[in-house]
Amino acid sequence: MGYTVFEKVLRSHIVSGELVPGKRVKVKIDQTLTQDATGTMAYLQFEAMGLPKVKTELSVSYVDHNMIQGDFKNPDDHRYLQDIAAKYGILFSRPGNGICHQVHLERFAAPGKTLLGSDSHTPTAGGIGMVAMGAGGLDVALAMAGEPFTITMPKIVRVLLAGELPPFVSAKDVILEVLRRISVKGGVGKVLEYTGPGVKSLSIPDRATIANMGAETGATTSIFPSDEVTRQWLRAQAREHQWVLLEADADASWSETIEINLSELTPMVAQPFQPDNVVPIEELEGIKVDQVMFGSCTNSSLRDILSIAHILAGKRVHPSVDAGISPGSRQVMLESCACGAMDELISAGVRILESSCGACIGMGFAPPTEGVSLRTINRNFFGRCGHASGKVFLVSPEVAAASAITGRIADPRKLGIEPFEFRQPEQFIIDDSMIIAPSAEPEKIEIRRGPNIAPLPEMPPLPESIEGEILIKVEDNITTDHIMPAGAKILPLRSNIPEISKHTFEVLDPTFYHRAREKGGGFIVGGENYGQGSSREHAALAPRYLGIKAVIAKSFARIHLANLVNFGILPLLFHKAEDYEKVDPQDVLHIDASTITTDGPFEVHNRSKNGSFLVTCPLSEEDLTIVKMGGKLNYIKEKNKSNA
Amino acid sequence: MGYTVFEKVLRSHIVSGELVPGKRVKVKIDQTLTQDATGTMAYLQFEAMGLPKVKTELSVSYVDHNMIQGDFKNPDDHRYLQDIAAKYGILFSRPGNGICHQVHLERFAAPGKTLLGSDSHTPTAGGIGMVAMGAGGLDVALAMAGEPFTITMPKIVRVLLAGELPPFVSAKDVILEVLRRISVKGGVGKVLEYTGPGVKSLSIPDRATIANMGAETGATTSIFPSDEVTRQWLRAQAREHQWVLLEADADASWSETIEINLSELTPMVAQPFQPDNVVPIEELEGIKVDQVMFGSCTNSSLRDILSIAHILAGKRVHPSVDAGISPGSRQVMLESCACGAMDELISAGVRILESSCGACIGMGFAPPTEGVSLRTINRNFFGRCGHASGKVFLVSPEVAAASAITGRIADPRKLGIEPFEFRQPEQFIIDDSMIIAPSAEPEKIEIRRGPNIAPLPEMPPLPESIEGEILIKVEDNITTDHIMPAGAKILPLRSNIPEISKHTFEVLDPTFYHRAREKGGGFIVGGENYGQGSSREHAALAPRYLGIKAVIAKSFARIHLANLVNFGILPLLFHKAEDYEKVDPQDVLHIDASTITTDGPFEVHNRSKNGSFLVTCPLSEEDLTIVKMGGKLNYIKEKNKSNA
Repeated sequence: MGYTVFEKVLRSHIVSGELVPGKRVKVKIDQTLTQDATGTMAYLQFEAMGLPKVKTELSVSYVDHNMIQGDFKNPDDHRYLQDIAAKYGILFSRPGNGICHQVHLERFAAPGKTLLGSDSHTPTAGGIGMVAMGAGGLDVALAMAGEPFTITMPKIVRVLLAGELPPFVSAKDVILEVLRRISVKGGVGKVLEYTGPGVKSLSIPDRATIANMGAETGATTSIFPSDEVTRQWLRAQAREHQWVLLEADADASWSETIEINLSELTPMVAQPFQPDNVVPIEELEGIKVDQVMFGSCTNSSLRDILSIAHILAGKRVHPSVDAGISPGSRQVMLESCACGAMDELISAGVRILESSCGACIGMGFAPPTEGVSLRTINRNFFGRCGHASGKVFLVSPEVAAASAITGRIADPRKLGIEPFEFRQPEQFIIDDSMIIAPSAEPEKIEIRRGPNIAPLPEMPPLPESIEGEILIKVEDNITTDHIMPAGAKILPLRSNIPEISKHTFEVLDPTFYHRAREKGGGFIVGGENYGQGSSREHAALAPRYLGIKAVIAKSFARIHLANLVNFGILPLLFHKAEDYEKVDPQDVLHIDASTITTDGPFEVHNRSKNGSFLVTCPLSEEDLTIVKMGGKLNYIKEKNKSNA
Repeated sequence: MGYTVFEKVLRSHIVSGELVPGKRVKVKIDQTLTQDATGTMAYLQFEAMGLPKVKTELSVSYVDHNMIQGDFKNPDDHRYLQDIAAKYGILFSRPGNGICHQVHLERFAAPGKTLLGSDSHTPTAGGIGMVAMGAGGLDVALAMAGEPFTITMPKIVRVLLAGELPPFVSAKDVILEVLRRISVKGGVGKVLEYTGPGVKSLSIPDRATIANMGAETGATTSIFPSDEVTRQWLRAQAREHQWVLLEADADASWSETIEINLSELTPMVAQPFQPDNVVPIEELEGIKVDQVMFGSCTNSSLRDILSIAHILAGKRVHPSVDAGISPGSRQVMLESCACGAMDELISAGVRILESSCGACIGMGFAPPTEGVSLRTINRNFFGRCGHASGKVFLVSPEVAAASAITGRIADPRKLGIEPFEFRQPEQFIIDDSMIIAPSAEPEKIEIRRGPNIAPLPEMPPLPESIEGEILIKVEDNITTDHIMPAGAKILPLRSNIPEISKHTFEVLDPTFYHRAREKGGGFIVGGENYGQGSSREHAALAPRYLGIKAVIAKSFARIHLANLVNFGILPLLFHKAEDYEKVDPQDVLHIDASTITTDGPFEVHNRSKNGSFLVTCPLSEEDLTIVKMGGKLNYIKEKNKSNA
């Protein structure tokens, strides 16, 4: 029997378990990446493990999220990360070197390898034929410590591409079409593997855009074959020796097939506030635009910048539009300077923002009150742009550029200009001088910690009698941006759990923190796909710090489920979805911990309603043990103690 | 009798009064500029006057300070400013077009004209032979309304330049030398007029750097002649028709002369936390540097960028240094792209920050805790870089660049490289498309106000019995950054007095706001040069909102004194400086308003000490009337009422 690309890579990395959908598999991790917003916490956890050096083939620590530096907090974090990298054998990509996924694709991602990253868009590297997955910081810390990563073997969906993209339609439209069809939870428990004759027409950055935003379907990851296009990319990055051929076997088996004819695609737009709220551009043309933001890990490659410059060339940003660009990397910037694209963007009146995640996570460049913001990014969640009234529409670089000059949502096909054709350089400008190698004398490195870098709080085990109030009841598709917002005010607190926890659920209910403190914790009730979006483990750490014992939901997003386990919060599923309707905020619930099982339903008592309902626990025995012990750090410490 | 350049310009603009030092003169204002941090308040005041259109020859509204946009507040301000400009006949320089003083120098500043700006570095345009002064927003609003600007005629100091700057010594070193000699209060009540054979060797951006930072001496302004170099600059900016010859007459009379031989200057450094804490670089060489910031209105011209690029060419920023640059304008960026300098900066590992004031005012790019930050800016006040522990050293672009590559404070003369020579382009790249013209149909413009744009608070008149506690007693050289900090957290509140007032004196005493609220206001006691630095009127508006009735100090900085008057706070001088020692925080003071006079000393009773001391009121009769009426807006309203 043949294998898919995903299976082939996994087979060469399996530590234990079977490649059967739904079964748990432990996988060796070759590479890790972290970014600064999740990285400080990951490294605090790595430090707690007491190892002298990472055990991966390659670990890279990027700084790309918190680059505003409104006070000492961000630069202290950068310095901490630089010291940690020097000491523990990690490459440090300096602020200014670029967005982690773009830089990783350029300089490190390799077909056939595995990558675990503390960022939910780590699957970007799937564009190059890598099994690349997002995880919480603690899981990445464990991978750096040499622990295999445990996944529930996903089903493998074949996304069969035919045809070629028409002019002014680009990779972003492909993934928006996927989201339109399968929704933000259509990928849960699945891998999206792209194949078919349409693949070869897509450049590596195109594939990376599609793999990147596959995260928005809830998929474990997305992956492309490694072919001649991959080889050319690696050659242009002076890394051809890392190329291997990787294709799905003809007789590979798939759980399902999604067919997309690239030739038939048209420009698409995801409306606020979900990435799957996708309509063809025709339905929105003419809406007035206040802001256009080019960039992010989804659309900031050289191809994208040149396509934008092509549309803006000789034109001017509309007077009512504020336009800004964050190029993906220093390499992209250098290439853009060399070919005149940078000049063209500045001439057009585009603001040159830093090569960072910035605006995508509300870290600057927020739109005005009630502002319509067109962005080439991957998420348009409520509040993510920096405030509640901003309306973010997700679009391709081409739609963004056309709209920037017309002042309204515009179809780039109607501009009457020549289509753009990307010619990848034979050889990219390669200069890794902003990637700092680890110290040759690690024992001499002293880790400098700023006053905002707080140690991890203690995490006591789950009590025998779990009782408390439902502190909040939320609906379907609640994101980690709802649970723990990012943005310029809150991101700098990522290294400080007591401080950041004050902002838990702030966008939904500003009283949450105070009520949680007053009641000493309690329960959260969620709908479908609870915890989708960013991999930030703070969305579990902060509720845990506030005493949340369990989240009862209709379903969970993968990474957040793992984060709840990692920090000792019990995730539970309503056995009957309709029971969701029967609980109310402030109901007092009770669970007898001895009744918790992973085998079947058990009871939750609702003291306020004098009744009970059934839940199931969607965990393995090992994960339930971890929760009961108060989280994975306690578990690992205990394990190491008994091994000692 | 002959005249100085300053006198010549003033003579052609005098509305009333005499050009006798110490006398009050009313001057016609040709041009105004505002920036966004002070501009929203200035335009709220202009709106309150009910005029249909500005009455100046030219008024420009720049956005350069608050460009982080951490939430809706900054972009709402930008939108408000754009609407106001469209409606009232003002040019609007969009965010991204550059730093007000650099853009004004390039596109609008003209020899022989007068300019009033709501920014203390407005004197930058003195480099082109303009009388350019900083003022509070209300004074600029009044100038836009056609009111003349009142100054106390300063003494005119001749700064006689001889020789030529040696290699790697630049304009910044000239003004640092001036500051070293005369201190941060040495210019109070004076104008620094540069003359002598050394002038012709200085480019317009060089002169602008010197005039810009003359603000740090407390001078009313600084001015250069308008000569062939000026003509060439204007020609290269396609504005030669605006050139006039302006030189001091041979028999002009000067209050004093400062002689500087440019040939003898060496690189200088101003140490924390005052711009006059200047030493030759030899005394500091070797100090480890954490951060280098290139840019600001002082040093961000094309000449400066090219000089930096020249030193960095082929080299790399030291791994322990985080380096960033804010080019001065879009023109500078376009020129830098065209000649390859931008490429060189990126290659060297410099972060390309937006063309904005940003880091200079703590609006991003803060150094780490206890970090040493070398900056080409004009102020190194305590806390101004974003937090209290950052140590800012002020240096030339050349010293900054040399230090960026060596990782330590370094003398650029010792790098062993060829000296840089600036060749000004025959014709700069001119593209004013980011400067938006006023609307042709102003009546159709509706002003959009965000929720953070609050109306001005009411300002009741001074009471007959002025009594209250000394809420704070501060030492010499307290800056407006101490009184009302800037930075990423506070700047976005500039349009909202109730909110921003919570941060009054925060860096010196976090309890100030609460005590002021509790006591319903009171007194401030200051030392010498109280209120130096930025022109921000919020340093008067916020104390006024908190009920401060009077500030008793040893001396006042010019702009802040005017702002106190504008907002109805009584400025008083200790008649005997030693009485400063005899009052303590929490002493309850009392003044009978009927005893206040501008003619001589009068009594302040110290109820806590059962005694009294003498003060004088350094105001004109008109200004005292303004204070008694509760500020200038009340005064103007009353005046217009009686005229109606």
